[in-house]
Amino acid sequence: MRYLITFSYDGSKYKGYQKQPGEITVQGELERVLTSLNNNVETRVTASGRTDAGVHALNQKAHFDLDIDITPEKLEHALNSMLPKSIYIKDVKEVDNDFHARFNVIKKEYVYKINVGEYNPLMVEYIYQYNNQLDIGLMNQAIKYLEGTHDFKSFTKDSEGKEDFVRTIIKTNLTIKDDIISISFVGTGFLRYMVRNMVGFLIEVGRHKRSPEEVQEVLLAKDRCKAGITANPEGLYLKEVYYK
Amino acid sequence: MRYLITFSYDGSKYKGYQKQPGEITVQGELERVLTSLNNNVETRVTASGRTDAGVHALNQKAHFDLDIDITPEKLEHALNSMLPKSIYIKDVKEVDNDFHARFNVIKKEYVYKINVGEYNPLMVEYIYQYNNQLDIGLMNQAIKYLEGTHDFKSFTKDSEGKEDFVRTIIKTNLTIKDDIISISFVGTGFLRYMVRNMVGFLIEVGRHKRSPEEVQEVLLAKDRCKAGITANPEGLYLKEVYYK
Repeated sequence: MRYLITFSYDGSKYKGYQKQPGEITVQGELERVLTSLNNNVETRVTASGRTDAGVHALNQKAHFDLDIDITPEKLEHALNSMLPKSIYIKDVKEVDNDFHARFNVIKKEYVYKINVGEYNPLMVEYIYQYNNQLDIGLMNQAIKYLEGTHDFKSFTKDSEGKEDFVRTIIKTNLTIKDDIISISFVGTGFLRYMVRNMVGFLIEVGRHKRSPEEVQEVLLAKDRCKAGITANPEGLYLKEVYYK
Repeated sequence: MRYLITFSYDGSKYKGYQKQPGEITVQGELERVLTSLNNNVETRVTASGRTDAGVHALNQKAHFDLDIDITPEKLEHALNSMLPKSIYIKDVKEVDNDFHARFNVIKKEYVYKINVGEYNPLMVEYIYQYNNQLDIGLMNQAIKYLEGTHDFKSFTKDSEGKEDFVRTIIKTNLTIKDDIISISFVGTGFLRYMVRNMVGFLIEVGRHKRSPEEVQEVLLAKDRCKAGITANPEGLYLKEVYYK
């Protein structure tokens, strides 16, 4: 039976989502617990995509197959009792055997949080502590140039060996409340470091170091060096994953 | 010269405020950094009071004396550059040599946060994850019985050898927003574990295990066993310390 899980995790406690030898990762923890539940039959988990070290997830999705016969409710309960407290299974569903948590994604939402107020030593791992004013008006102009279908090569890392950098950003949103800027991107797919690189550029715009219109030049350049800094991982949240 | 500092810290990173041999504590970190700044003259820090392991502070206050001549602005900058990122100096003031950060306190405010919504694996160390409904109406009735001047012996720990358990709670407030209950207590002084024990009782009221009126009986009993559970440290914040 194939299961689809929705789960959240505190990325500051893991060396990223993806399993790596000798490191504590979200995938590693999930597979360890599922393998134990599945009568020690090695169980592989396929997520909608990976998140980097320090990046959080509010509604990550993944599928896996189990040999044992267990209801979604019991599986959810068993997983939450066995997983570390920094990973939480919010929902378990049975799905068809051809369902694929990565290939079936139609869109995803990421949110990035920046504290432009006073430094907060309690939220160091959950909100990027910029602690300086940013020009929200200009950032809001710049983000609109990122919407639509573009070649995002300038905004990704490790572009060697890959061909296709065209992605569609369906919707963006940038708001401020209580000195916390929240920047949301809904898109059909995201390249590695793409959100953090876009946010890095937006911060430069907010500091008056770049102009909003330069987004267009940077996109056309297809050159990582043109885009600038990569924003820190701790401000980034995978918020939603959508399937057909 | 005597200085008064206002500072915040992430209590989850420390074995409490108070210095203990072999443990990482907030006082220990402050004294280590200040001694180094003060030409290695051992420098003692006196806070408004201690906080237990896991308890946070938003505006803790402390005083200390330095031999060196340094402006408050430079001292603030030096401290923040040398302290761990989980402690933040928000303000430094010069004060008279007879100012005392503990004896001069006239009132303090504590806030306790409870998540009554879905478990949040990102906020495990910052909000008590109760994750069940609580009857706010009854809790609001109960908290009013705690206001005023009472003998709080039933709500403290380690009462042996002490005489005076009379304290005044000037004001309380209990609100809920986005499934987070915030309970605030302003008082002239608080005994050890007093806030966590009062919150523990309020949670029992919210669960319909105790009635609001029982607060009166518990206060009159002057017996710790009558009050019930101690709420977890991670929900507690020292919010403000007031001087004349």
